[in-house]
Amino acid sequence: MAAQTVATESTTTDGAAQSVDLGPAAALSCRECGHRVPLGPVFACEECFGPLEIAYDYSAYDTEELRKRIEAGPANIWRYAPLLPVPADVATKPNLNPGWTHLVKADNLARELGVTGGLYIKDDSGNPTHSFKDRVVAQALEAARAFGFTTLSCSSTGNLAGAVGAAAARAGFRSCVFIPHDLEQGKVVMAAVYGGELVGIEGNYDDVNRFCSELIGDPAGEGWGFVNVNLRPYYAEGSKTLAYEICEQLGWKLPDQLVVPIASGSQLTKIDKGLQELIKLGLVEDKPYKIFGAQAEGCSPVSVAYKAGHDVVRPQKPDTIAKSLAIGNPADGPYVLDIARRTGGAVEDVTDEQIVDAIKLLARTEGIFAETAGGVTVGVTRKLIENGLLDPALTTVVLNTGDGLKTLDAVAGTGLTATIRPNLDSFRDAGLA
Amino acid sequence: MAAQTVATESTTTDGAAQSVDLGPAAALSCRECGHRVPLGPVFACEECFGPLEIAYDYSAYDTEELRKRIEAGPANIWRYAPLLPVPADVATKPNLNPGWTHLVKADNLARELGVTGGLYIKDDSGNPTHSFKDRVVAQALEAARAFGFTTLSCSSTGNLAGAVGAAAARAGFRSCVFIPHDLEQGKVVMAAVYGGELVGIEGNYDDVNRFCSELIGDPAGEGWGFVNVNLRPYYAEGSKTLAYEICEQLGWKLPDQLVVPIASGSQLTKIDKGLQELIKLGLVEDKPYKIFGAQAEGCSPVSVAYKAGHDVVRPQKPDTIAKSLAIGNPADGPYVLDIARRTGGAVEDVTDEQIVDAIKLLARTEGIFAETAGGVTVGVTRKLIENGLLDPALTTVVLNTGDGLKTLDAVAGTGLTATIRPNLDSFRDAGLA
Repeated sequence: MAAQTVATESTTTDGAAQSVDLGPAAALSCRECGHRVPLGPVFACEECFGPLEIAYDYSAYDTEELRKRIEAGPANIWRYAPLLPVPADVATKPNLNPGWTHLVKADNLARELGVTGGLYIKDDSGNPTHSFKDRVVAQALEAARAFGFTTLSCSSTGNLAGAVGAAAARAGFRSCVFIPHDLEQGKVVMAAVYGGELVGIEGNYDDVNRFCSELIGDPAGEGWGFVNVNLRPYYAEGSKTLAYEICEQLGWKLPDQLVVPIASGSQLTKIDKGLQELIKLGLVEDKPYKIFGAQAEGCSPVSVAYKAGHDVVRPQKPDTIAKSLAIGNPADGPYVLDIARRTGGAVEDVTDEQIVDAIKLLARTEGIFAETAGGVTVGVTRKLIENGLLDPALTTVVLNTGDGLKTLDAVAGTGLTATIRPNLDSFRDAGLA
Repeated sequence: MAAQTVATESTTTDGAAQSVDLGPAAALSCRECGHRVPLGPVFACEECFGPLEIAYDYSAYDTEELRKRIEAGPANIWRYAPLLPVPADVATKPNLNPGWTHLVKADNLARELGVTGGLYIKDDSGNPTHSFKDRVVAQALEAARAFGFTTLSCSSTGNLAGAVGAAAARAGFRSCVFIPHDLEQGKVVMAAVYGGELVGIEGNYDDVNRFCSELIGDPAGEGWGFVNVNLRPYYAEGSKTLAYEICEQLGWKLPDQLVVPIASGSQLTKIDKGLQELIKLGLVEDKPYKIFGAQAEGCSPVSVAYKAGHDVVRPQKPDTIAKSLAIGNPADGPYVLDIARRTGGAVEDVTDEQIVDAIKLLARTEGIFAETAGGVTVGVTRKLIENGLLDPALTTVVLNTGDGLKTLDAVAGTGLTATIRPNLDSFRDAGLA
């Protein structure tokens, strides 16, 4: 359903051309061959099948005017509306207003890891459904509105399911979400409670994803906006806001090093895109930064390819407790490899045991209860320091993209340190005095 | 251990007088008899055993200067530091920086409930440990620092345990937290993961609370700051920030009606105190507002007393899924009754079934997944409208003080709406096409 009209118009779901207002978004552009098409619910280039991205015209911005406008904006991602594919009045529409989450100076963790250059956790558990997915869904929702969709859908490893269910409920969309049937209870209940359809697929995430692609081509999927499939170019832009916030919260400075989890790889590539945009716009100084990718050993196709010096990623069958990262065939894997190599970063992985240790380490030192994906980034940070790839003397930002309450099983061994009767004798008997 | 020194000094845990800097806090003052004592780790009046509160000197503030200072402050509770018992540089100290949570205009829910005057949810699930308790613990932590305590402790129905564990971890305190032994798994794991002592008490919250009071008088409790016992006057002030934020987020306007959950009753009384302060300081117009209290039927001592026209509250043995409100002997019950009557509000309660319905209603309409306490306030709001006590034509703010992920059992029946194989035939067979 590729749009064939001019750049200020698009093809809607019923095929009729109508103008869409997605703010500064000018067109879709192929990441591979640069072919441009008008804005529409398409995600693959009609020329080369490469992924489509949003193209903007940055020349229109005055740097200091833009900076002032951002700083005067709301305490959520819409402060960056001038840089996102959303209408200028987006903040007035019903959505979850995610973002502007805490950038925590993690001095206790820095001491434990030997980081001297400043260590920060970008803690996205503070988002409305407690994962970074609220950022990307908020973009896809605006695109869905613009293209006249009435059902919001997705394939999900869990966090996205909750984010789509919640955003659809608030925005008045029907939702139908597809997840692997064996997800953590917290993620299942959270996705279901918003009242939309929640369909378990007998298979892993890659099976779910393949099924959704099939559904898009079928009449049954007519009028459906799949946030991470046919709305993917818009959706993916949401991850840029992590880059924007990190730099603004550092006082409009680029960090030297970032440690980012890899599922599909989209988040990492869009963080790089966001940093590049800030440099081009003059909002931060043009200086080098390194991006490190983090995976679980049980789903490490990008890490394996990185270490082998490959440019392509060989799919894996995931087997890890880090289910939100369990994408065995990551679409943006090759781009991640390219970014890690170009910036002087690396891609590393950790075992499930190291993930659990890292979750507890972060909780014990900074009072942040991360989900398994946060255990992966903190664990990988530790490993990268140990093997000399991450410089502890440089400013480092580590992403926590989710919430420990959704992956309780990972730390289920954690519980009461004692049980006593309500009196001092029992307290003393338990050795607590 | 009542402090006997002058108002700018206090008695520390080892009995030595030293000056404490808790910003604008001038002294402790008895709510009952007005007797003043210097700042210290005391909570009951030595004259009449009434509860001690923080006394400030408001005459020192210029209204517009204060408003500007607040608006230029950080996006957390420390923007209100000039009105809280904390040092001026509090934002630079290691704590969880809670607050400035979303005030959500709930138009979908308003339509379902027939509210025409504007309905808002103050959603405190966005706090670092996903409950309003981060607000109060942040105050107690500063007092604990000022008084030289090294262990942070509390009695808790669950949310407070997580908030204390996390805050202590980040601030470098030891923590030892006491909870009823049969709490929800999410709350237990969350409290334990921060690495402090987590002690289950064989009994209900009131037993836990009694035990903590006993421990304070024992040498074993020496050097311990119990956030909700000996640090209670400081701790309780944190709830004022809910009132401040609601009014500032409404554009420095008082709402007409507020629906607030009742556990100990402290939150409701401090919200009233916060609103009164804003009026006195000239930050909002002096106009009437009504405060409504919300309880679960299975723990409704204040609601029962309200309906019976009593001034005192008769303790109950709690039996409700709203465990975070399950305080059968609420310390501030009489004050709640007084405020509800004085402001023209009311106190109402709902059944467990109505709580679950209300959780689902809020999720389905606004994409907010509340814990059981949020089900109580939304359910009570509906009931108050039905029985004519809450005016749907007036601006109404309903508090959600916690997160649905911590009380999953309440909506455990919610889950997958279908399970299918990853193909279109299976999709159609399930009736989803």
